[in-house]
Formats: sequence, structure tokens, C-alpha cells
Amino acid sequence: MLDFVGLGLFDEKDISLKGLERIHNADKVYVEFYTSILMGTDLEKMEDLYQKKITVLSREDVEQHAEEWIADAKDMNVVFLTGGDTMVSTTHVDLRLRALDMGIETSLVHGASIASAICGLSGLQNYRFGKAATVPHPYVTSRGSRVISETPYDTIKMNMENGLHTAVFLDIDKDKGYMTVNEALEILLEVEGKRGEGVMKDRISV
Amino acid sequence: MLDFVGLGLFDEKDISLKGLERIHNADKVYVEFYTSILMGTDLEKMEDLYQKKITVLSREDVEQHAEEWIADAKDMNVVFLTGGDTMVSTTHVDLRLRALDMGIETSLVHGASIASAICGLSGLQNYRFGKAATVPHPYVTSRGSRVISETPYDTIKMNMENGLHTAVFLDIDKDKGYMTVNEALEILLEVEGKRGEGVMKDRISV
Repeated sequence: MLDFVGLGLFDEKDISLKGLERIHNADKVYVEFYTSILMGTDLEKMEDLYQKKITVLSREDVEQHAEEWIADAKDMNVVFLTGGDTMVSTTHVDLRLRALDMGIETSLVHGASIASAICGLSGLQNYRFGKAATVPHPYVTSRGSRVISETPYDTIKMNMENGLHTAVFLDIDKDKGYMTVNEALEILLEVEGKRGEGVMKDRISV
Repeated sequence: MLDFVGLGLFDEKDISLKGLERIHNADKVYVEFYTSILMGTDLEKMEDLYQKKITVLSREDVEQHAEEWIADAKDMNVVFLTGGDTMVSTTHVDLRLRALDMGIETSLVHGASIASAICGLSGLQNYRFGKAATVPHPYVTSRGSRVISETPYDTIKMNMENGLHTAVFLDIDKDKGYMTVNEALEILLEVEGKRGEGVMKDRISV
């Protein structure tokens, strides 16, 4: 059995009682921090509270070498921890599909996610959010040109036209780190400079 | 202090460790089941596991007579439990604003919500969801005419035009009960019959 457990939003105490039970019954426990990180805790605090050894997996371990560690789930209880709710990131859906292909049973234990917590944190209404967007780090191609994704700009524009808010996720990169709000705004303003469609005009107020 | 604690999605074990701590430190614990209900548990099981007396509040208690029970939070620890994540329903935001008006400090403990769990349960991507909608029970006016909200139809139509999924919430009514999926589909098909804009055509497949 491969259990996917969402850790919630901030620290080691945001896990559900159900999630904690799964960890206690687990033979092996893994965690990844490349799709999101719990700002209020670290691996040591998690291991102390959960009373279990936890192995941290890199993006490569999850996306390219998953078969190596999920194979144990054929006859052991393996738990895979992630920040927020599980299955919001497509990389986790992909992992679940690969487990099913290998004949491994899976289960989900949901956790609090920014997708719903954003209402309480911002005071904005759930019903007024449209499609979400992610601002990825710009990258430089092998030919040396800098590429910025215009997708988040398009998404914000579409939502604005429909009178809706946009939840904007910030990219996490192994080398470039956790994108800050300011970096994301600079990237969006750079797209605004190129496109000039007024999406960012008078919009920056927190 | 008034703590808003989200119970998560299904049963008494979906609460976070942080939420459980708040209950243990509480002088009074309240819950409401009119915005959502935990299908896998009941009040007795919750009280057994949480080791605390819990008082169930009606919609009227929350929306019209909140001052009566939240006044205690001026000098006691009062915890208010709700299914899912807290603050997704505007009625909870309103309650928090009223507490703040009364000089009561508030805090939020988030829980798993269908707003994010829908990805894992349906296999659909978080990024492909647009604005959410609720299908309310039709009602009869004092003059005897039946009123059906066309808002969910409009929302589904807008999302379809943008290539997006719609999360559709089902109404809960004190007298009419929990709306079923079939009832919601009948209501949407009734709007389709009136408007004929093809929103529901070939769309019903699970």
C-alpha cells in the first residue's frame, strides 16, 4: 500500500490524526519538499513528533526514479508526505498512476491546502477565484535567449475580464530557490512592458 | 480568543493535531453542520475522540444570534468547528468580522477542503478549474412562482468557453435537506430546457 498524506500548510502539527496514524503504521516514510515546503518546521521536528525516520526525496527521485522506492509498497506500508494537500501537484498524480501500473494499491489522506486557505488568509471569497496560475522562473535557452512564460499574465487577464481573483503560485527551483512575491511581480511587470495590455496597472495593492 | 478550526472532509480523524490542541485548551466548543457535514462520523464519536463536550449550533445561532455565544471569547477560549476548511463559506467570514467588531481576537486552523481534494478524488488538474458554483434548492415566492437560480448554469458555461472544469457545490437546506447529484442535474437540465445554450449537452458522464 502506498499512502499519499498531505501535511497541511505550516508546521508538523498541521497533519491530520488520520495522516499520523498512517505514519505510525508505515514501514517506510518519504517526504518531498520541491513542490512546497513547510515554513514552520524542519525534518528533525517532524521525525521527533511523528516518532519515525523520514527520508527526503529529490525531484529526480520522485519524477525519474520512483519505481526504485515505491516497489516496496507491493508488500509493505509506504507513506509519501507532501506539503499542503496531496494530488494538487500533477507530479503526485503521475506518481500515483505509476504505482497503479505496478499493481500497487494507493490511498489519499487530504491536508489543508493554500487552494482553500487563501480565503481565510486574504479575506477574499472562494466563489470569486478563477483559474489559478504559477509564475515560473525565467530560463535561458541553449542559444542564449531568455524565456519568460506569459501564461500567468494571460490567466490573470482572463480572470480580470470575468471579475475574478487569481491565486498565483510561486515557482520553486532546486538552483534558483523559492521565488519571492517581488520576483513574481517583476516578471509580471516585464510581460506587461512587452504586451502593454494593462493587466498589472493599478493592481498592486496588498 | 475565538479559534476557527476546520475539521477536514470525512470523519473525526481528519482534524489536524493543531486543531485538536485548540479543542483541548478550549473552555467551550461549538460546531455547525449547516454548511457541510462529515459523512463518516457523528457528534458522539467526535466528543469521544476529542474528550470534550461539543454544542451544535443551528444556522440561526450562527447568523443571527452569534453575539450570545461568542461574547464568552472575550475572556475564555472558544473553539468553533466546521467541516472542511474554515473561511471557505462567507458565513464564517462574517462571523469572524463580527467577533473582531466585539474586540475578540480570532485565529484560524485550516483543514482539508473539497476545494483542493477534488483533484485527488476526480483525477482532474487543479489548474484546469475555473470559478466554482453552488446549485441552490429552487424556492417558491410568496406569490407562488417557482424560482431557479441560473447562476451555476452561467458559471459552467463561462468555464466551458475557457476550457475549464467547474466544481459544483450542492445546497444544504434545513427543511429540504442535502441536495443530491441527481437533483442538481435535474435543476441544471431545467435551466438548459429554458435557455437551450447547450451547456449540459453530452456533458453528463462520470
